[in-house]
Amino acid sequence: MLDALFKPRSVAVIGASSKELHIGNRVIKNLIDFGYKGDIYPINPKADEIRGIKAYKSILDVEGPVDVAHMVIPAKFVPMAFEDCGKKGVKHIIINSGGFSEIGPEGAAIEDAFMVVARKYGMRVLGPNCQGIINSDPELRAYCNFTFTFPDPGHISIVALSGGVAEVIHQGFSAMGVGTRIYASNGNACDITIPEIIRYLGDDDGTRVIVTYVEGLRDPSTFMEVAAEVATKKPVLAMKAGRTAEGAQAAASHTGGLAKEDIATDLIFKKAGIVDFRDEGELINAAVAFASQPIPRGNRVGIITNTGGPAVIGTDILVDAGLELPPLSEKTEKRLKEKLYPDAAVHNPVDILATGTAEHYRNCLDAMMDDDHFDCVLVNFVTPFFVDCDSIAREIVAVSKQQKKPIVCNLMTDRRQWKETVRIFQDGGVPCFALPGEAARALATLVRYHRIRTRENGRIKEYTDVDKARAEKIISDASSAGRHMLLSDEVYRILDAYRIPVADWHMANSAAEAAKVAEEIGFPVVVKADAASVIHKSDMGGVAVDLEDAGAVRAAVQKMTDELAADDLRFFIQKYLPGGTEIILGAKAEEGLGHIIMFGLGGIFVEVLKDVVFNLTPVTDADAKEMLATIKGAPLLAGARGQKGVDRAAIEELICRLSKLVGDLPAIQEMDLNPVLAFEKGVFAVDARIAI
Amino acid sequence: MLDALFKPRSVAVIGASSKELHIGNRVIKNLIDFGYKGDIYPINPKADEIRGIKAYKSILDVEGPVDVAHMVIPAKFVPMAFEDCGKKGVKHIIINSGGFSEIGPEGAAIEDAFMVVARKYGMRVLGPNCQGIINSDPELRAYCNFTFTFPDPGHISIVALSGGVAEVIHQGFSAMGVGTRIYASNGNACDITIPEIIRYLGDDDGTRVIVTYVEGLRDPSTFMEVAAEVATKKPVLAMKAGRTAEGAQAAASHTGGLAKEDIATDLIFKKAGIVDFRDEGELINAAVAFASQPIPRGNRVGIITNTGGPAVIGTDILVDAGLELPPLSEKTEKRLKEKLYPDAAVHNPVDILATGTAEHYRNCLDAMMDDDHFDCVLVNFVTPFFVDCDSIAREIVAVSKQQKKPIVCNLMTDRRQWKETVRIFQDGGVPCFALPGEAARALATLVRYHRIRTRENGRIKEYTDVDKARAEKIISDASSAGRHMLLSDEVYRILDAYRIPVADWHMANSAAEAAKVAEEIGFPVVVKADAASVIHKSDMGGVAVDLEDAGAVRAAVQKMTDELAADDLRFFIQKYLPGGTEIILGAKAEEGLGHIIMFGLGGIFVEVLKDVVFNLTPVTDADAKEMLATIKGAPLLAGARGQKGVDRAAIEELICRLSKLVGDLPAIQEMDLNPVLAFEKGVFAVDARIAI
Repeated sequence: MLDALFKPRSVAVIGASSKELHIGNRVIKNLIDFGYKGDIYPINPKADEIRGIKAYKSILDVEGPVDVAHMVIPAKFVPMAFEDCGKKGVKHIIINSGGFSEIGPEGAAIEDAFMVVARKYGMRVLGPNCQGIINSDPELRAYCNFTFTFPDPGHISIVALSGGVAEVIHQGFSAMGVGTRIYASNGNACDITIPEIIRYLGDDDGTRVIVTYVEGLRDPSTFMEVAAEVATKKPVLAMKAGRTAEGAQAAASHTGGLAKEDIATDLIFKKAGIVDFRDEGELINAAVAFASQPIPRGNRVGIITNTGGPAVIGTDILVDAGLELPPLSEKTEKRLKEKLYPDAAVHNPVDILATGTAEHYRNCLDAMMDDDHFDCVLVNFVTPFFVDCDSIAREIVAVSKQQKKPIVCNLMTDRRQWKETVRIFQDGGVPCFALPGEAARALATLVRYHRIRTRENGRIKEYTDVDKARAEKIISDASSAGRHMLLSDEVYRILDAYRIPVADWHMANSAAEAAKVAEEIGFPVVVKADAASVIHKSDMGGVAVDLEDAGAVRAAVQKMTDELAADDLRFFIQKYLPGGTEIILGAKAEEGLGHIIMFGLGGIFVEVLKDVVFNLTPVTDADAKEMLATIKGAPLLAGARGQKGVDRAAIEELICRLSKLVGDLPAIQEMDLNPVLAFEKGVFAVDARIAI
Repeated sequence: MLDALFKPRSVAVIGASSKELHIGNRVIKNLIDFGYKGDIYPINPKADEIRGIKAYKSILDVEGPVDVAHMVIPAKFVPMAFEDCGKKGVKHIIINSGGFSEIGPEGAAIEDAFMVVARKYGMRVLGPNCQGIINSDPELRAYCNFTFTFPDPGHISIVALSGGVAEVIHQGFSAMGVGTRIYASNGNACDITIPEIIRYLGDDDGTRVIVTYVEGLRDPSTFMEVAAEVATKKPVLAMKAGRTAEGAQAAASHTGGLAKEDIATDLIFKKAGIVDFRDEGELINAAVAFASQPIPRGNRVGIITNTGGPAVIGTDILVDAGLELPPLSEKTEKRLKEKLYPDAAVHNPVDILATGTAEHYRNCLDAMMDDDHFDCVLVNFVTPFFVDCDSIAREIVAVSKQQKKPIVCNLMTDRRQWKETVRIFQDGGVPCFALPGEAARALATLVRYHRIRTRENGRIKEYTDVDKARAEKIISDASSAGRHMLLSDEVYRILDAYRIPVADWHMANSAAEAAKVAEEIGFPVVVKADAASVIHKSDMGGVAVDLEDAGAVRAAVQKMTDELAADDLRFFIQKYLPGGTEIILGAKAEEGLGHIIMFGLGGIFVEVLKDVVFNLTPVTDADAKEMLATIKGAPLLAGARGQKGVDRAAIEELICRLSKLVGDLPAIQEMDLNPVLAFEKGVFAVDARIAI
């Protein structure tokens, strides 16, 4: 439980300082200035008071209990100070100082040392090398942090390792006059983790929306598990940076960690139901909308405006984001024709004209709240000098407070002149942005979260017809033999154990045997050379296709025997399947996460257009369906250009079985089914590779 | 010349009012409050003074000359008031009133009426139904406008029909403390046009960057011509809204015009060298950067930061936008290792640490200005309480003022607390944004403009081997015959006149003749039915391919004769070319602009992936090369998957000839070459269609 960290009844500052520009002074100043309701204990062996508060030589001298102790002392003194804290019964320690694992092994050793003490006494640690926490709860007002943005009470909570970005996001809310609830930046995160804090915020009633920023995930599976659980309760918004190789390098440099370009984080966000962002500004704006507005029940938006152009910009963005602008219902149209100016545009977007009054806005909003054509409303409002803008703001606030459908507002004004109007909106909790694009994107994100919440997650298919033990045995045998790349027959026996359909095949050791099994399989056949030394079969002349008779098979085998000259050479004889659409499937182990499954169309689609999609195991039936639907070449699977489509159900089944296979066999590092041939009825893997 | 409009020595307000909430009062208030240096003449038959300024019964009573007269009177009185203005010798009239063409034919008639008077007296008109102009020149300070955003003097000029969006953009600058130069919103634009104003701003020395917003272009060719001319002098930034069908409909509704979803505007922007935007926020931020920073000479960026995460976000965005982050030169690295803290990260991005001082920033900036690895610099600066932020701001300002290389800053602060720091940046003209993404995108746009300025425009190829007269004759004959769709032989004769290579062909009237010409062409051949009633040949059984001998040709012709039963049926016999890569070319007339040329790969690429690119005529050789390079399937043209590429030079030549052809023959409404077969050597159109 992190309650004592986020709701401390008392805070000690070890390393409290009389110097203005010292963090050990600033933390105390912040606690005082922010109006902290608990007790503050400056700890300084030489001072009697700091900022007018009685100071203590040692934390052991403090009379009352201590929930949180800040450490603002050099790293080398920290383990010793932990002993004192332990003896005192301190619950949580926030280490603001740096000089730990972020600087190298000697710093990491200090982390290890103080953690031994922390565990001994059951103390939990935030940081080191971190900012700390803020809780704006009016009953508490804890600013255990040395930064400078003082939040109003609010419903957005922020958590990130990176104090810089957490602070930028925090400033974003502050600049818009939007409050926050809890802020936490945990730096090196040697003990209390981001998932732990997210779980806490998930249970915190005052938090309506959780915002996080990551550059990489330390413990991806725990992050995913926790985020998935919390995201069903309230929106979790996240942004990952370090997406480009250069960005990842920059991240690795400042975190001292191993950041890398990855796709796994995106997949984790998606699977966990996180609302993800590429742009921190969009994240900030969306959080503001989530903080006060209900989640829409659909994607149909009504627009009300008192000026033309901004509504056009908003419309473009909403439509691009997949929202619909339905027409007004007959009833709404009738109602508005009576209530608005004769020249007003009574269709969606409704233009009430610049001279439109508070009553006009109110009528329009009420009508859209009642009209079941609409799930949400975008308001554009420029503040002309000739109308009563404050009254308009009050009406919009009143309707917003009903919480029937979300309202997001683009407020176009000079905030220095229309101070009262702005204040009414802010106090009334209407999300107001200064640009139509910002407002439209924030509203579109509410709808995106609705889609995430209501999406069909599908189910993980269970298979009773698979033979896990057999597959495990094949892998352990190969592993014992020191092979990382399975032989063809091993690969095909594993596919068989998981009922992954392949073109008929048989191994042969000689030309004669090859011809014999080819007869059994039925012509035409393919012959592939199989030996540990033959990696790129095609390039090395180890593949012969469309062989029509036994003679051709014998000739092909003879030629390979001559050319490849490998001691362990055998031959893989397989039914040749002409036609079919080439698809590819792949799986790659991702540390701590299972596997990433890849699917795409073969040939130019993968090689030229990189038209592939990814998912994390376990892949559900709904996931598999979505993978088929989201490749660019999806129309080809359905049937395009007068050609019949392929057996999509069979491909989906194949993806699910592949997911099951690699899930059961974690030793598999990489696996390809490339190509798989998809026909109108059925799919068959015709080449496959497994690396363990 | 619009000098008297934008630099009026005197302004009369016809319809000046004593009522606070009347526009005829507001315009006078704005002129006074903004500190207008010229004379103000309220015109009102009943008042002696308005806002303390002597009022006149008629404009004819005014003693001095009048450069600009506002009209704030009902539409029906405007033509009569024009007569008075003409007699008085007024130079420009700004009509703020509405009730003209935007409301329908009767309003349009009033526009016609006052324009007759305007022409008689040589008066120029801004509007009607418009906001007016602002000129912030400290020597003038003309606020001939009823809106409410009071700009500081600056270097950005704004022009748009839509007052709403122009005002939003203006507010954006104002909110950032960035000045503007000239503002103009011309509403119905019945006389003075957007291109005219853009040309004026191009010649205005005080304007460093021009910003415009459009929902459609009234006179696209003039717009393009003027914008292209001005864009060579200074950056022209533009955004078009109404991109989606729904957005276009919203735009049509509020402009009363014929807005439609178009691609032409994007092509015009590109051809004119306009820096275009999809997002008004990005446009605003880029304009702020252009207003004070020089244009970079390349795409190599150095990043300086005092906090890690925001630099990672910036890096991602810069790299995505095509910028490079080169390493520091050896000299810079050595210099910074001496000057910065030992723990500072001395590579690109340079992290000087949160405790980094003004001297550190200065050393780093100086080094990057000197280092020829860099063309521009992104500064991230969070304002910790323990450093002297004002001094840091002053050093950044000092380097920015040298105007050696552009600097854009992400300033992460609480603007209410760090007021002085913010003021130093603002007064010093350093573009400062509150988010790393905003700063990075603004900087990337400076680089984008550099690319536009230095791009190879190529040349329009001249052809002496084309026979324009022959092609014109074919078209005029078809036109005389009342045909909109040319017959096959007409199409092919036009292609021949423009030396567009086609597979050998001949027309035939009968099976016997078809067999004979097929022998001459050489087998295999294709037979296509040709008749006015046969539009979709393939679907109607009017195409037979790969015919190997005369018998097959006769049979095919007989079958078509039986099945199609058209009186004017003839047969188009063409050499059948197996293999080759299918490409498609098209041309479509665009009113007032020439033609749009389309190019793409055929088959699934066009049908499933919509992988086509567009350009406006005349297409230069460089344009054609770029078209080939920018389709998604471009690697296939170059040769991919072990296959040889196609004759790209021949395709480029074909695009240029098609551009010449439709340029010479404006009667052509639509033309397709579909498919064209491209081989390793040579390309051949094998089907073509021309509509006039």
